[in-house]
Amino acid sequence: MADKKLVEAITSMEEDFAQWYTDIVKKAELIDYTSVKGCMVIRPAGYAIWELIQADLDRRFKETGVKNVYLPMFIPESLLNKEKDHVEGFAPEVAWVTHGGLEPLQERLCVRPTSETLFCDYYKNVVHSYRDLPQVCNQWCSVVRWEKETRPFLRSREFLWQEGHTAHATAEEAEERTRQMLNVYADFLEQTLAIPAIKGRKTDKEKFAGAVATYTVEALMHDGKALQSGTSHNFGDGFAQAFGVQFTDKDNTLKYVHQTSWGMTTRLIGAVIMVHGDDSGLKLPPAVAPTQVMIIPIQQKKEGVLDKAYEMRDRLAKAAGGTIRVQVDDSDKSPGWKFSEQEMRGIPMRIEIGPKDMEAGKCVIARRDTGEKIEVNDANLEPTVEKLLVTIQDDMLEAARKHRDAHTYVAHDYDEFKQIFGEKAGFVKAMWCGDVECENRIKEDLSVTSRCMPFEQEQISDKCVCCGKPAKHMVYWGRAY
Amino acid sequence: MADKKLVEAITSMEEDFAQWYTDIVKKAELIDYTSVKGCMVIRPAGYAIWELIQADLDRRFKETGVKNVYLPMFIPESLLNKEKDHVEGFAPEVAWVTHGGLEPLQERLCVRPTSETLFCDYYKNVVHSYRDLPQVCNQWCSVVRWEKETRPFLRSREFLWQEGHTAHATAEEAEERTRQMLNVYADFLEQTLAIPAIKGRKTDKEKFAGAVATYTVEALMHDGKALQSGTSHNFGDGFAQAFGVQFTDKDNTLKYVHQTSWGMTTRLIGAVIMVHGDDSGLKLPPAVAPTQVMIIPIQQKKEGVLDKAYEMRDRLAKAAGGTIRVQVDDSDKSPGWKFSEQEMRGIPMRIEIGPKDMEAGKCVIARRDTGEKIEVNDANLEPTVEKLLVTIQDDMLEAARKHRDAHTYVAHDYDEFKQIFGEKAGFVKAMWCGDVECENRIKEDLSVTSRCMPFEQEQISDKCVCCGKPAKHMVYWGRAY
Repeated sequence: MADKKLVEAITSMEEDFAQWYTDIVKKAELIDYTSVKGCMVIRPAGYAIWELIQADLDRRFKETGVKNVYLPMFIPESLLNKEKDHVEGFAPEVAWVTHGGLEPLQERLCVRPTSETLFCDYYKNVVHSYRDLPQVCNQWCSVVRWEKETRPFLRSREFLWQEGHTAHATAEEAEERTRQMLNVYADFLEQTLAIPAIKGRKTDKEKFAGAVATYTVEALMHDGKALQSGTSHNFGDGFAQAFGVQFTDKDNTLKYVHQTSWGMTTRLIGAVIMVHGDDSGLKLPPAVAPTQVMIIPIQQKKEGVLDKAYEMRDRLAKAAGGTIRVQVDDSDKSPGWKFSEQEMRGIPMRIEIGPKDMEAGKCVIARRDTGEKIEVNDANLEPTVEKLLVTIQDDMLEAARKHRDAHTYVAHDYDEFKQIFGEKAGFVKAMWCGDVECENRIKEDLSVTSRCMPFEQEQISDKCVCCGKPAKHMVYWGRAY
Repeated sequence: MADKKLVEAITSMEEDFAQWYTDIVKKAELIDYTSVKGCMVIRPAGYAIWELIQADLDRRFKETGVKNVYLPMFIPESLLNKEKDHVEGFAPEVAWVTHGGLEPLQERLCVRPTSETLFCDYYKNVVHSYRDLPQVCNQWCSVVRWEKETRPFLRSREFLWQEGHTAHATAEEAEERTRQMLNVYADFLEQTLAIPAIKGRKTDKEKFAGAVATYTVEALMHDGKALQSGTSHNFGDGFAQAFGVQFTDKDNTLKYVHQTSWGMTTRLIGAVIMVHGDDSGLKLPPAVAPTQVMIIPIQQKKEGVLDKAYEMRDRLAKAAGGTIRVQVDDSDKSPGWKFSEQEMRGIPMRIEIGPKDMEAGKCVIARRDTGEKIEVNDANLEPTVEKLLVTIQDDMLEAARKHRDAHTYVAHDYDEFKQIFGEKAGFVKAMWCGDVECENRIKEDLSVTSRCMPFEQEQISDKCVCCGKPAKHMVYWGRAY
């Protein structure tokens, strides 16, 4: 039995989802608040998840030819100002450095909110001929956006991310790269974070400042709200024209490059919490669980119990090509308390081993995702754990998909649309005429935004759900983080 | 034969070492200059070296129980001001954020030059009892110091580093951790970067702002100047007192924690350039070479040559447990040009394969470190390359050690001391009385600083090399970057 004290320390998710979320990030020791308003400490348990996310994404990037670089964290004001839409989008929320040491700066510098302008400045220097293309770079860094309301992982003044920036000889190649990276993101969400993703295109109202097209992967959280989980932008040659990034093509004429950018952030950790967690705490998919298996000895002071636990740990650590991340909780806490901690921290699997199990040549495995308990013969330990980690990963994706599908609705007209958003929380699929006025009205009436025009379109009706004029696109609508 | 054009593009190191260095970082495409004064772009070829450094150091850290975290990049002015020595050391060189979005901030924030103050703030929150100790954290991030004169990698306004910060229950444990991390640094320098290190303690004049003791690893560059390559600081309980970081010990009394910090930076890439490079370009030790082996086909348009090159690549990629980083240069450049590029980029080994070699069932391996050429039977390719990579790594360390030892001198009195620094460049071992006045005079007379009091002391004489009073320590002196 898990100890109740630790569990009772967190608010039930049905009662108050926002408070439940805040309790989880604190009690699972993912973050700590700081003296710096709107910024957080990512603690070891949180950062270890980010390291696994980084390693997995970075491998996927490199398989497509991406190379990592590092550009300055500062952008001179004159550089930020070069692309009109971009500066309008970001200037209201940047932090400004005005003094270096004891001297005022001649030109103030903003702390990068994103690095399109710096990459243009760099590509302008290194791209001269078609032989220098494509440039396919990425950087892992932190960025700053001076948000008024902040929440751990989901919205903070500083956050960690990766930002890919590419330059291509043709529009077609840029479009291809934009979609390729969106697919990398969708695969990563599903295969690694066990989060099913809706792939689609943002409306003009919701697209990135300066982009021709923004593609997005949208996920549904447990409370029925949407989370934009990654975006990929095609800039055409707009930035290249503003910054003068040109190359001599094979035909000996001077052309502008076509550019893209794409990013994912530490908000993914928020997504993992809100898609998979429950009232006992975090639930980590095995692929991003810093500890996948926690062995908890029962009556550990009895002779041989701890030794048996260590032996099992050593066997598991050697199995599956050394890929299983396993620990023994040999602290002096009670087993019940240890169970609660393992559940709170989201460790996917617990192995209970005590004198009775040892006598019977068995142990008990408890799955964090389903709560199921499985008795395992000692001789079958390694293959059982290895297989079960795969099963848990798959089942968590399946559970998330079922939840999303059960909370995805269809609306044919505005009454139905309003009724659904009045009574339920989730995605609503409905048709749209393409006019921003309808988006504005829907936002005003219901605090609902267009999440994306999915690549997989369905013909729900002929008419816009809002104005009744002829429909152009099916849109996923939702309330979003 | 290597092509002369690329080589002639760089200044000879004997002629102008500083210009040679600048040429290397540009021609090997490690960095690019930016519109942001004093900041640089670390390009793919440079960043890939940093990724290998990070992976190696991170593994060594984790083996000693270090956990990674992320703290904010901003420090409120009031927090920076809490420890007197520390703020005096850093305040003159920090960048200040004064505006967030369109509003002036109530309190200005500095961009972290180092994070002792933030870690104290964090540990104050999470350390309550002896059970919460030790805290052994590290972060990989960038920091900003508003330097007036900058040089790529060696001194820039923003640079990448790791900063470890620990808190302990006792003074002994803190001292042990400080020295443990210095040993990690020394082992890393020798085993991975092939740079021999002098381990020692900084004098009070040269120690870190706020530290009780600073330990350092000092390396000698090719031009005879010293480079401080990593430092490890013991803070005692000074920061804990300033920030109120206390815990309840086993005896139920309230005590201050004892703290350490330790860091290495991207200047290590500068060290690799300046220890190993030559007039043909960079020379990378195999352990940090993104590409270790470049296969260059000769007469690649002749039938079978490229196929043979790819076959060799695939065989090498599979050998040695998949650890050999190998590529084929199949571009349409001339072999001579490819040789020059491979040499400029510092790739440790080149394999030449052409029709004549194929006929003879052989290939030619050229070592970047010694220039030696070795004929190898095709059947012996994998074991030869695997073994040779180890040999090159070892030989590069040995060559650097010989160079350092040949440029380390002994001075018994001030005349001899001045004569050596007048005629030669290198380390000088000489005795010191312990007074800062002598350090100041030596700096004024010769622009020479005390690099460290090495752990391995020698009794060169009884008297201070400067003032002639009784000597307390042997010191390594040098001109430093």
